[in-house]
Amino acid sequence: MATIGVVDTTFARFNMGSAAVDEIRRHASVRVLRRTVPGIKDLPVAAKKLIEEDGCSIIIALGMPGSKEQDKICAHEASTGIIQAQLMTNTHIIEVFVYEDEASDDKELAFLMEQRSREHALNAVNMLLKPEKLIKEAGTGQRQGFKDAGPARL
Amino acid sequence: MATIGVVDTTFARFNMGSAAVDEIRRHASVRVLRRTVPGIKDLPVAAKKLIEEDGCSIIIALGMPGSKEQDKICAHEASTGIIQAQLMTNTHIIEVFVYEDEASDDKELAFLMEQRSREHALNAVNMLLKPEKLIKEAGTGQRQGFKDAGPARL
Amino acid sequence: MATIGVVDTTFARFNMGSAAVDEIRRHASVRVLRRTVPGIKDLPVAAKKLIEEDGCSIIIALGMPGSKEQDKICAHEASTGIIQAQLMTNTHIIEVFVYEDEASDDKELAFLMEQRSREHALNAVNMLLKPEKLIKEAGTGQRQGFKDAGPARL
Amino acid sequence: MATIGVVDTTFARFNMGSAAVDEIRRHASVRVLRRTVPGIKDLPVAAKKLIEEDGCSIIIALGMPGSKEQDKICAHEASTGIIQAQLMTNTHIIEVFVYEDEASDDKELAFLMEQRSREHALNAVNMLLKPEKLIKEAGTGQRQGFKDAGPARL
Amino acid sequence: MATIGVVDTTFARFNMGSAAVDEIRRHASVRVLRRTVPGIKDLPVAAKKLIEEDGCSIIIALGMPGSKEQDKICAHEASTGIIQAQLMTNTHIIEVFVYEDEASDDKELAFLMEQRSREHALNAVNMLLKPEKLIKEAGTGQRQGFKDAGPARL
Repeated sequence: MATIGVVDTTFARFNMGSAAVDEIRRHASVRVLRRTVPGIKDLPVAAKKLIEEDGCSIIIALGMPGSKEQDKICAHEASTGIIQAQLMTNTHIIEVFVYEDEASDDKELAFLMEQRSREHALNAVNMLLKPEKLIKEAGTGQRQGFKDAGPARL
Repeated sequence: MATIGVVDTTFARFNMGSAAVDEIRRHASVRVLRRTVPGIKDLPVAAKKLIEEDGCSIIIALGMPGSKEQDKICAHEASTGIIQAQLMTNTHIIEVFVYEDEASDDKELAFLMEQRSREHALNAVNMLLKPEKLIKEAGTGQRQGFKDAGPARL
Repeated sequence: MATIGVVDTTFARFNMGSAAVDEIRRHASVRVLRRTVPGIKDLPVAAKKLIEEDGCSIIIALGMPGSKEQDKICAHEASTGIIQAQLMTNTHIIEVFVYEDEASDDKELAFLMEQRSREHALNAVNMLLKPEKLIKEAGTGQRQGFKDAGPARL
Repeated sequence: MATIGVVDTTFARFNMGSAAVDEIRRHASVRVLRRTVPGIKDLPVAAKKLIEEDGCSIIIALGMPGSKEQDKICAHEASTGIIQAQLMTNTHIIEVFVYEDEASDDKELAFLMEQRSREHALNAVNMLLKPEKLIKEAGTGQRQGFKDAGPARL
Repeated sequence: MATIGVVDTTFARFNMGSAAVDEIRRHASVRVLRRTVPGIKDLPVAAKKLIEEDGCSIIIALGMPGSKEQDKICAHEASTGIIQAQLMTNTHIIEVFVYEDEASDDKELAFLMEQRSREHALNAVNMLLKPEKLIKEAGTGQRQGFKDAGPARL
């Protein structure tokens, strides 16, 4: 049985990890491992450890970058590290970031964090178990959390 | 028989992968492997897996960064990862990115995405099979999708 | 007995390393190794050496980026290196940075530097000895030094 | 006999590679290998392949970043990759970039691209065969293409 | 006997390498190896070669980024590479950069370049031979070239 790893943060203002774990359980019979770290810059190594020390086949890394300029630089550093961790392990790590200022109030923020966590958890399940599903959606303007953009018409 | 890998995204608003596969088939008798991932930040490891796990000799990685500021940072992270994946494998990965705001409307966007995908697919074929063709075009101001810039006159 | 490594800088304007060492000692019976380097860009390799040459199981890397634009770029470079060092060692390095301009005067600066150093030292202890404590705090908007942000209400 | 590798691009608007090859031949009896790739982001792996697969002792990597904002980000990514390729091979790769907007017209652009290519080709020859020549010029404000800045007077 | 490596550039407008070598000789009986490269982006691999091919125990890498916007990006790339080289070798490389626009005229520039080179050369000697000296200065606001900032008062 394959294992999916889920890592989130104590910094985020919604329990993204629980939403992802719940969504995985709805769609697949896989083993799920959960870790929580302080902030998004701790995600890359946590994900790599789940792959190399705990045998996960794919990882969902969730976080909420804050709204200050410095937070956006942190997000850039975390994203760079997440890509590097993937290259060092030949394993996909699906990054699920919701920027605190993407939402206009707390309610929309929590909604968006839950929705994007769930939609990307499903992406991870499909990448692991049904990768041909993604080929069928190539170039169709999929978005996670907000409405899909759809394809550009010729 | 050599294998060319093609990776694109569900985020893009045109099926860049299909255009690249079609163009490869017009110019070369090679095996083609296709993968689709959610977004451009998933491209680097997908390309590296095609090289190391599936034996591809060259990769075409296609994506459409969105028009928001954050999307441009994502593109920078993806590009950095694509370069890193090449260095870890000693294999060329031709990046084909069309920025959503390079085009003034949907029709031009779809045209540009198809055209650039096809021209770079041909570049990949030549790099793999006829690298001397590129030396002949050195310094001639080639562009993909838009009109060539041409050489600077002394 | 596990070893926690602590690295700080001569550039910082508060003895963050001593605060971290003191806090660790209040919460755990572990061996502590201390290093000091000139500036934050010297932290990544110092941390990596503590892990690979001195057998530390987790590292706390503390620094105070200055208030000039160039200092923020240095912080970005240091952070990138700290993430890279973690990926090369599969070991967490908790970065504790206080920006000089986060505080309005010297008194607040010293307070913030001490407080954040202590709170992250406790994070490191928990990550090493009681990682399940962090899962319980997932998505609760924890902050170090300043007041917690708390969860977003649905 | 040592081998110098030369890589340039089809994107550039002057044949920088030919100028570099010609300048090398005027100063040294070495073997020269030439490659051309589509754009500057393809340079890092091309250089690394010349070192690891073709045995080059030093590389000259030439390119012309365009004048758009996005082109400058591409240049940054290419430069980062070129530095990384050097660290992975313990081999110098001399980067020769001329920004399209450094020149006020096509004539000056072509002049600058030729001149900088030739001066850096000579640098590469000296680094390979007479490294002590560079120590003699330490801190003298050398520039390639434009007039030297000269040393700062005490 | 330990070896300290010193690398500087022909681009800089003051002979930083000579100042560093002189300062090392005043404080320690060590072997010193000197290299000079064209610009700051050539420093990372030069430093790594001094460590891995010539057995240096610590490196001082000196350079003067120019005052143009592009020069600051070059400095960022060089710094990133210097951190990476340290992580690949588990060896400290003390970066000594003086920005051309930190000084108001040539005289101050030369003074600052000499002073910072010397102060960091002494840092390198202490890190190699008396690392406990740095722990004593932790959090005391040390600066190189300009006046120390001193500790923040509670």
